[in-house]
Amino acid sequence: MRPLITLLTDFGTADGYVAEMKGVLYSLVPDATVVDLSHDIPAHDVELARLTVARYWRRFPARTVHLVVVDPGVGTTRAALAVHADGRSFVGPDNGVLSPALLLGDAQAVVLPVPAAVSRTFHGRDVFAPAAAALASGAPVQSLGEAAVSPVVRRTREPTRREDGAILGEVIAIDRFGNAITNLVGVRAGVVAAAGRPVPVRATYADVASGAPVALTGSSGLLEVAVRDGSAHSTLALKRGDVVVWYRPS
Amino acid sequence: MRPLITLLTDFGTADGYVAEMKGVLYSLVPDATVVDLSHDIPAHDVELARLTVARYWRRFPARTVHLVVVDPGVGTTRAALAVHADGRSFVGPDNGVLSPALLLGDAQAVVLPVPAAVSRTFHGRDVFAPAAAALASGAPVQSLGEAAVSPVVRRTREPTRREDGAILGEVIAIDRFGNAITNLVGVRAGVVAAAGRPVPVRATYADVASGAPVALTGSSGLLEVAVRDGSAHSTLALKRGDVVVWYRPS
Amino acid sequence: MRPLITLLTDFGTADGYVAEMKGVLYSLVPDATVVDLSHDIPAHDVELARLTVARYWRRFPARTVHLVVVDPGVGTTRAALAVHADGRSFVGPDNGVLSPALLLGDAQAVVLPVPAAVSRTFHGRDVFAPAAAALASGAPVQSLGEAAVSPVVRRTREPTRREDGAILGEVIAIDRFGNAITNLVGVRAGVVAAAGRPVPVRATYADVASGAPVALTGSSGLLEVAVRDGSAHSTLALKRGDVVVWYRPS
Repeated sequence: MRPLITLLTDFGTADGYVAEMKGVLYSLVPDATVVDLSHDIPAHDVELARLTVARYWRRFPARTVHLVVVDPGVGTTRAALAVHADGRSFVGPDNGVLSPALLLGDAQAVVLPVPAAVSRTFHGRDVFAPAAAALASGAPVQSLGEAAVSPVVRRTREPTRREDGAILGEVIAIDRFGNAITNLVGVRAGVVAAAGRPVPVRATYADVASGAPVALTGSSGLLEVAVRDGSAHSTLALKRGDVVVWYRPS
Repeated sequence: MRPLITLLTDFGTADGYVAEMKGVLYSLVPDATVVDLSHDIPAHDVELARLTVARYWRRFPARTVHLVVVDPGVGTTRAALAVHADGRSFVGPDNGVLSPALLLGDAQAVVLPVPAAVSRTFHGRDVFAPAAAALASGAPVQSLGEAAVSPVVRRTREPTRREDGAILGEVIAIDRFGNAITNLVGVRAGVVAAAGRPVPVRATYADVASGAPVALTGSSGLLEVAVRDGSAHSTLALKRGDVVVWYRPS
Repeated sequence: MRPLITLLTDFGTADGYVAEMKGVLYSLVPDATVVDLSHDIPAHDVELARLTVARYWRRFPARTVHLVVVDPGVGTTRAALAVHADGRSFVGPDNGVLSPALLLGDAQAVVLPVPAAVSRTFHGRDVFAPAAAALASGAPVQSLGEAAVSPVVRRTREPTRREDGAILGEVIAIDRFGNAITNLVGVRAGVVAAAGRPVPVRATYADVASGAPVALTGSSGLLEVAVRDGSAHSTLALKRGDVVVWYRPS
């Protein structure tokens, strides 16, 4: 198997930053397969990057190197990390984007040295890409730096249960289709109060009429509020952080 | 030759859905070359997806697997298809996006089984990607399911001829440059009435002055209405579905 | 090493033009690695394409073929070029996008023949992609056409020095983060007047408070005007072509 390196950034592509990183990767690992995952993470949106990494990282085969550069803190003292967990490797800034890996029991994290000569604005090219190339070439993560102490871990907030049995959750992301993804899991019945209205929990879009709101379990196991053939984001004005309440109708 | 799998979706990339599909593909076919064609099809735009597939599918070498996931009907009873035609394979929902393959004389189409356990919202990951991986690994299309009966086929509307010899067509797509692509073919002279004004048919942009409208045969053989160094979409307010009339000036 | 072909266009991806080019490339060079650099160059923005090429081309290994199709002049008499310089090859229109290669001492440039039968609107597919495939397959650049005479070369304007020692530069690009990249190089101290206000030159973002403007050397060695945790483009209303003046405060 050729070395597999995936790439997630908030760089867009027009400015050439991603191109420079790819040049570094192909120069150092000519037989690599470099896989674009996204360069359209909104600028500096560490939280969406973390949720996106959580979606994909374990879908890739063992030995994949996941390179994640959403890095509002470049040029500050935030550390640069490499992590090995569950057979995959990860490289990125110490701001929480690598949390899905760091939360695993077998995670090994090291701090990458940042040579004084490298750019103060573009560690993606000068620090993270070379580290990813080294890992893709077989270097053990421990060889890249000293063990990281208390790397930044971000978690999705847990839903809370009210005394009356209702569960309070929140919208954690809006996807391209306008679906509002919540932090509620394992919900197969009942009703969700979202944007001030009751939305029935159903198995699939087809269980409601076109244009009607519906709550259903999405592809990551999280409850989503959707509008069939429409957008919960624009129809219900749902946005990240909004409270949703699940309850069993009386 | 390594297995070649192309990918066309309306998912965007920021949410990680495409990333998950790529993880599935590389896990099942580690030596595949997965080629991004677009993830920027407007959400649920089955018609543009169909036209885009028509443009590219035959440009790829034999044995390419074309995976097309523009799927507003996921979670309904619409079928999941795999098709083999003219040496290439296709996988996608039964909503017309695979019409360019289905219209071929040698097309073989099967209905993919949808296991009860898979996500009701993301067949791209759980049904279509595994089928594409199987085809890329050499499985014959017939091994993937029962023969499809009357799969959905969409066609571009044919132009009609008026009694006076004029031909009525329509704008079928607006491209990124604002060119209005019509359903008229084989037009090399005359005039096209578009947006209430006569537009001369010429061989190339350079045959008119900068800023002037011109009609010319585009790279797929279809007549396009363009504005040199400008946009027919914004200058002439042309949009999909608008009528255009070709005639020979008297 | 497999042949490496990079791709920079202003086509977007939704219309299928990039897909057609990839089909041509993979048909002609089945074992190629085709690397997307960007398809999001603003339509017809030759100048940004040139600056982007300058960023990445030398980061890729020797023998890489860089295909650049930002081509407002397709269908006119502008020439089609192939260039070999510093061990890499380049293919694209003769409008200045290939200047970073043409400016090298060892550059060899040829004019690609344009057969009469090819599309008058899509040389990317019919002229440039086949030439890139030939180069990737090992054809010497001289075999592809006659030597080019005076190909179009674009240069970034040089800063000028005022009698009082101040240096007048300009903003040459705005990146996705709203950073205003200037044509000033080697600046490590002093002040830059930009958008009517003095901006201190510092080593890194962290040297100013959040929300404050700062000028610093970016990853290409050019001075950039930025706003920490913000956007110089939206906060200072800086745009391409704006004058910036460096001076040493008295």
